[in-house]
Amino acid sequence: MTKEQLFEHIKRKQSFLCVGLDTDIKKIPQHLLTEDDPLFAFNKAIIDATAAYCVAYKPNLAFYESLGVEGMASFEKTVAYLREHYADQFIIADAKRGDIGNTSGMYARSFFDHIQVDAVTVAPYMGEDSVKPFLVYPGSWVILLALTSNRGSQDFQMTELADGDRLFEKVLKRSREWATDEQIMYVIGATQGKLFLDVRKHVPDHFLLVPGVGAQGGSLQEVVRYGMNDRCGLLVNSSRAIIYADSSRDFARAAGNEAYVIQQEMADCLQDRGIILSKS
Amino acid sequence: MTKEQLFEHIKRKQSFLCVGLDTDIKKIPQHLLTEDDPLFAFNKAIIDATAAYCVAYKPNLAFYESLGVEGMASFEKTVAYLREHYADQFIIADAKRGDIGNTSGMYARSFFDHIQVDAVTVAPYMGEDSVKPFLVYPGSWVILLALTSNRGSQDFQMTELADGDRLFEKVLKRSREWATDEQIMYVIGATQGKLFLDVRKHVPDHFLLVPGVGAQGGSLQEVVRYGMNDRCGLLVNSSRAIIYADSSRDFARAAGNEAYVIQQEMADCLQDRGIILSKS
Repeated sequence: MTKEQLFEHIKRKQSFLCVGLDTDIKKIPQHLLTEDDPLFAFNKAIIDATAAYCVAYKPNLAFYESLGVEGMASFEKTVAYLREHYADQFIIADAKRGDIGNTSGMYARSFFDHIQVDAVTVAPYMGEDSVKPFLVYPGSWVILLALTSNRGSQDFQMTELADGDRLFEKVLKRSREWATDEQIMYVIGATQGKLFLDVRKHVPDHFLLVPGVGAQGGSLQEVVRYGMNDRCGLLVNSSRAIIYADSSRDFARAAGNEAYVIQQEMADCLQDRGIILSKS
Repeated sequence: MTKEQLFEHIKRKQSFLCVGLDTDIKKIPQHLLTEDDPLFAFNKAIIDATAAYCVAYKPNLAFYESLGVEGMASFEKTVAYLREHYADQFIIADAKRGDIGNTSGMYARSFFDHIQVDAVTVAPYMGEDSVKPFLVYPGSWVILLALTSNRGSQDFQMTELADGDRLFEKVLKRSREWATDEQIMYVIGATQGKLFLDVRKHVPDHFLLVPGVGAQGGSLQEVVRYGMNDRCGLLVNSSRAIIYADSSRDFARAAGNEAYVIQQEMADCLQDRGIILSKS
């Protein structure tokens, strides 16, 4: 999916919501455990209930890998289901990969050729040759970790460098040279508040993937105030607050309602910014 | 496996070799492609031929994931085979994971509870709470990326900080506070030469996992000169130079020979250092 296509979906759906499919076998409704593939059954119901209100889905690989081979099958089925039924959704494999060149190439092949997601999250610590193999697939995206939502973001990402920048700024500046804003996005945690202003100094036009709204305590209003640009430039992720909104048989409807509430708030933001003319 | 047990295995086998199982379906001998599980068939033959000369195996997850569910099954079978037949081998899942706390916890559960490896490689960029969930499994290890073997290690790891350290030094110093040398090792690339001296200033007693000998151009002699400590403190990995030593039906014997040559060189190093009394 191109940047322009993503922006069109955002305007049409009046939403820049990404639903995080952090599907934990220990947290899904009990009655699903008798299904052949409980993770997929849960995801399918969540997707059907929320797709009208979001533009992206982000399964986090950890939750699928923790169940071994069966979990990976659930992941692949989820992506295939989205591809078949919701072709306008941007699919992010939240994998936070990164290895030496030939090995990163194997991961890229896995996610873009084999499973066919739109984007993969990648960790920057190993530098340019660990990221570039993900950038050779036309229409596919790298979403590079820059300033994450967790407390540990203070440990290294915020470290001041000899030249006065902080490490996350160096990651933004260096990686800008590796590809354009048609191929790279950045992970910036919703908990980072005014630091979005510093991020936007370096990458005014890039899309930012913003986790940390909801369970982690980030504020949508703050993210929009400091991070939105004229072409939206934001994909704001919510996982637990949506998918675990309710644990009864009615879980999917509750998730849909939760996604709808966020979408309505997002539509207001897009209207305030003049990106859409009127909320429908 | 404890640090002491690992050291005992090193002395007994006169080897600190780790064989990297970077098993690429496109590189294994053609005749194996008719097997039910070609990756596992290859790994089993390589393991049987090399186990006498090494103390550790390191499957890199990228190579298995690139084949989807089937590849992950090959990975799990490989670990189970090692557990059953070669209980003295230290098994490293080279996964380079790292995520926010609850998600890192899922990865940890996957590798330590479900698949039961001894160690997982972890990326430090997201900081303390992304690493700690891997440290709650008794007897299990985190191997933290510090100074990697690739060219991209220059991009961020070598960056000079405001306090005069380089980033990899800050990673060493900070992470020393998270656990002892009984639970953390570090990845230091064989290509880093005299920088091993700087690493040893910060972590004199820790084991270092050293990739990059062989195909990537690192020198075993240099690694030993600058990086070995009185209790060895090194696991030197070789992947491609061993497992793809030959592509004929004789591939396993060639791999065994290659591992033997490296083991002999390592025995000399251990003897020179007085860690073993005589080479057997």
